[in-house]
Amino acid sequence: MSKPEPADPDVVGLFSLVEPEMRLVARQIEAVVRDESRLVAEVADALLAAPGKRLRPALVLLAGQAAGASSAILLPTATAVELIHMATLTHDDILDRADWRRGEPSVRAVADDQVAVLAGDFLFARAVQLLASTGRPAVVAEAAEVVHAMCLGEIRQHLSHGRRPSESEYLGRIEAKTATFLAICCRLGALASDRGPEVSEPLYQFGWQVGMAFQLVDDLLDLVADPDKLGKAVAADYGQGVLTLPVVYALAQSRDARELEDLLERGHPADLPRVRLILHESGALDYVRGKIEGYRTGAARALAELPPSPAVRALDVLATFVVTRDF
Amino acid sequence: MSKPEPADPDVVGLFSLVEPEMRLVARQIEAVVRDESRLVAEVADALLAAPGKRLRPALVLLAGQAAGASSAILLPTATAVELIHMATLTHDDILDRADWRRGEPSVRAVADDQVAVLAGDFLFARAVQLLASTGRPAVVAEAAEVVHAMCLGEIRQHLSHGRRPSESEYLGRIEAKTATFLAICCRLGALASDRGPEVSEPLYQFGWQVGMAFQLVDDLLDLVADPDKLGKAVAADYGQGVLTLPVVYALAQSRDARELEDLLERGHPADLPRVRLILHESGALDYVRGKIEGYRTGAARALAELPPSPAVRALDVLATFVVTRDF
Repeated sequence: MSKPEPADPDVVGLFSLVEPEMRLVARQIEAVVRDESRLVAEVADALLAAPGKRLRPALVLLAGQAAGASSAILLPTATAVELIHMATLTHDDILDRADWRRGEPSVRAVADDQVAVLAGDFLFARAVQLLASTGRPAVVAEAAEVVHAMCLGEIRQHLSHGRRPSESEYLGRIEAKTATFLAICCRLGALASDRGPEVSEPLYQFGWQVGMAFQLVDDLLDLVADPDKLGKAVAADYGQGVLTLPVVYALAQSRDARELEDLLERGHPADLPRVRLILHESGALDYVRGKIEGYRTGAARALAELPPSPAVRALDVLATFVVTRDF
Repeated sequence: MSKPEPADPDVVGLFSLVEPEMRLVARQIEAVVRDESRLVAEVADALLAAPGKRLRPALVLLAGQAAGASSAILLPTATAVELIHMATLTHDDILDRADWRRGEPSVRAVADDQVAVLAGDFLFARAVQLLASTGRPAVVAEAAEVVHAMCLGEIRQHLSHGRRPSESEYLGRIEAKTATFLAICCRLGALASDRGPEVSEPLYQFGWQVGMAFQLVDDLLDLVADPDKLGKAVAADYGQGVLTLPVVYALAQSRDARELEDLLERGHPADLPRVRLILHESGALDYVRGKIEGYRTGAARALAELPPSPAVRALDVLATFVVTRDF
């Protein structure tokens, strides 16, 4: 019997409401990356090999439908946010010295850091041109804010390297890394319509709450992974000064905090059962689950401010998927 | 007696027609970089230490005046092109593994490659927001084309690493690196006005010709520098697969081409007088001077298509400065 595959968002039917649009977005992304085929062909495969969940364009499209926006503006915007996401991942791989991305070799691994810098800049430039093609300067400025916020978050984290973050610093990091991006995707959907803040603000709030939840679910998934993976993940993150919220919490709250710190610093595989036990006993996992539930409630509250529609219901299903996913 | 300083463009009075605007641009750039002072203070000094000639914003402003554009649109555009220039320099220093920039430590030297990637992205994002603030999507798209063209040029050069470029490949490189950027600066000035292609096209042509001349003058300046500098520059460029036009020409045309290639590959300081002699005797310097004169004539011809004005005269003076500068 073959091992069950992790459920794919498309299989779940999560984006079925915007399926034709998502296919157009995929085609447009492929066209942008393959555009200068002779030149960037060497890196295009790395960029397209593992397309990921494409959550960001789906949010633009669904939020846009919820706001009644025209697809003439939504489509280039949705494509642009995914290109920006690909650009930041390509540059992130340089920052993290990562040779793998979603199970495929990263751009810096296929080519080198130099080409990865250029490929990211190329994707940014193409994204900005698509955004400009909407004819809406507010859409351009809002999308650029994603890059600005992420850069500041990363620079902040980089400069604090080695110092253990407080919980609020940690939450600030995942906000800059993910929540602001998803929030802006939702607001971009609204900006593509002619509706005002009565629609764009709840959508922004929804995206922010989903983004915070998404990142914390990632933290928990790190810990429930098989012991071998867990060990590598926790130790590697700790070695790079990158901590998950359960670890941040346990280091601050557990009576075994000193021991946990020593074990993490040593990073020895044999210590892993003990690391996991300390995290369990500190109440860190329940604490993080409670926070995720809070963000899920916040997301539902934001949606309740919008007039009911199939798109709003789809956003609600998406929020549930984000907090219950196990991959 | 103290050594004479190289003339500064401001002293020459080159930008006197747009002096108040240039001062506002400088203040706005300072504000952007100092904005998140606590966070990016560490790299801001490196970015501001050596402001350079600020040729690009001056071209936007002068071309804009020549087209009768309002300064409300010109100012943010002029600031944005300089921010884009700073961003590409910051990323270039990673590509070139350069620790110095205009006689000051580069961002990657002050911090590291990681921070330099982020600082560049930060500057791009701020530039895009300034461009969006003009309310003109065409201005945004045009400025993004600068980044797109430069990336393709750099990727192309990077992928051909080690292969000696033909003259036309070499000219394609300096076009992607400089001429397209200066051409777009001039067209951005026109796009800030309500005039059509009868104004924007001659301005674009002017910028392109000036850009090509600018880059070739750089090549010549490399060669007339004192022997010690010359040697380092030529050998280092050759070692990185980056050739100047005189070397490209001599390698293709000189009867001593084989010897020249050997000398460049060896990169020994004692060989430098011989290298310089071969370049001289091959006629490479006269050939490059002739090309520069051709671009200068092309620039004057483009300006002649525009209605006469103080701004057009200032652009003409600027073109003369570019081809006669000795620093």
